[in-house]
Amino acid sequence: LITMHPDLFELIAVCAKHKVGHVVLAGGLPPKGSIEAIKETGAKLIAFSPALALAKKLIRSGVDALVIEGMEAGGHIGPVSTSVLAQEMLPEIAEQVPVFVAGGIGRGEAIAGYLDMGAAGVQLGTLFVCATESIAHANFKKAFIRASARDAIASVQIDARLPVIPVRALKNASSELFTAKQREVAGHLDGGRVEMAEAQLQIEHYWAGALRRAVIDGDVEHGSVMAGQSVGMVKREEPVADIIGGLMTQAAAALEARAV
Amino acid sequence: LITMHPDLFELIAVCAKHKVGHVVLAGGLPPKGSIEAIKETGAKLIAFSPALALAKKLIRSGVDALVIEGMEAGGHIGPVSTSVLAQEMLPEIAEQVPVFVAGGIGRGEAIAGYLDMGAAGVQLGTLFVCATESIAHANFKKAFIRASARDAIASVQIDARLPVIPVRALKNASSELFTAKQREVAGHLDGGRVEMAEAQLQIEHYWAGALRRAVIDGDVEHGSVMAGQSVGMVKREEPVADIIGGLMTQAAAALEARAV
Repeated sequence: LITMHPDLFELIAVCAKHKVGHVVLAGGLPPKGSIEAIKETGAKLIAFSPALALAKKLIRSGVDALVIEGMEAGGHIGPVSTSVLAQEMLPEIAEQVPVFVAGGIGRGEAIAGYLDMGAAGVQLGTLFVCATESIAHANFKKAFIRASARDAIASVQIDARLPVIPVRALKNASSELFTAKQREVAGHLDGGRVEMAEAQLQIEHYWAGALRRAVIDGDVEHGSVMAGQSVGMVKREEPVADIIGGLMTQAAAALEARAV
Repeated sequence: LITMHPDLFELIAVCAKHKVGHVVLAGGLPPKGSIEAIKETGAKLIAFSPALALAKKLIRSGVDALVIEGMEAGGHIGPVSTSVLAQEMLPEIAEQVPVFVAGGIGRGEAIAGYLDMGAAGVQLGTLFVCATESIAHANFKKAFIRASARDAIASVQIDARLPVIPVRALKNASSELFTAKQREVAGHLDGGRVEMAEAQLQIEHYWAGALRRAVIDGDVEHGSVMAGQSVGMVKREEPVADIIGGLMTQAAAALEARAV
């Protein structure tokens, strides 16, 4: 569930009705009462935390597990990298609740490394986009297979008055148009041709439907091709079992090498 | 030595004259002939490489060691994070030359992790700024001790015509003024009030002397307080020996825990 969803509490009620076993809360500070409401359904609650202070607060509020996700991840991101979050947070919280590390993970050696630092597990998204089982459009998968880490860039805010929550996606025509759009709206603001609320809404709505346009319709130039920096490690379409098998082999080799 | 220095070859000659044992080349693709010139002095050559293809090329050209530095680092940075560079590059090159990993390292567990992945060593900058032995101004050290990882932000380019090489530094008055400056110069360009070359020069010169202004003069609001994301792990002023001792204790504990 996304914390900022306007109908969050109705969605929690749906989870309760269907006896959902685990609820993941993503997207920022959970609104007042939402943690309690989820816990009351009997579900285990897993929450994202981008900073140590918030993590400690969430643990006190009773979350059952945490995800720490670095800025290497695809989609909406915070400012701090996975390895820095892991160093700052795992030594402080990994003994209190299970912590899952996410962002920029593409090889088993890195998984072994985070487990060594105290993580209970990891979360990967980008690496599974090109799974044979994934319904993503062939164009979307091709874009992933072709891309390097440096092609997965965060969207940039160019005006303090027009907030942009950074989203990491493959650079394409729409990324450049988004910058141009911001400059245009900022210009309208300067000229008094548009109200602040309307201007901010125009920025917010720019990406509406853009992920679907890319993933389902296959328009990888004008849609949002959300991808993490691990996209450079995606080389081919292959079954989920092979992707996981490859990661496990690398992780096992790394752990065995240490025992020598 | 910085690859883009206009007098690079004269600087190499100075190194030769003084029989310098190790030369580090930073700042991008080494200009033609520079690698050969350095090797001829008899010095060991260590080069920065932000991508696998360049790393392989540098190894073929005869560099003796490589540094891979992620975007968590302070100062001039590339777009890809340390952990992603490590995953992409170490498995391919760590057996050919010694590779040093840099960017966002603040704890010994992370050092142990990169060594496990094949690194020969690590390079840390941010963590030593507040060493008792460091000549940085008291204001500069105070800013580091106060800052969190998310305060160390990369400078942002807002116009495709005005290139900005991103620099990671603590957010202050000058970061906001730099964005305003770019908008102003872009406006002058739009209005035809300034030539392209002059506009780009104005952007380039904005930060001239800014690091010195912050580190030496202590003006942490209008200077450039270059810092990596590991700045949040800097808690106090302490001797270099204690900083290294702390890292070693953490790394040793991590390695011992694996042997169990």
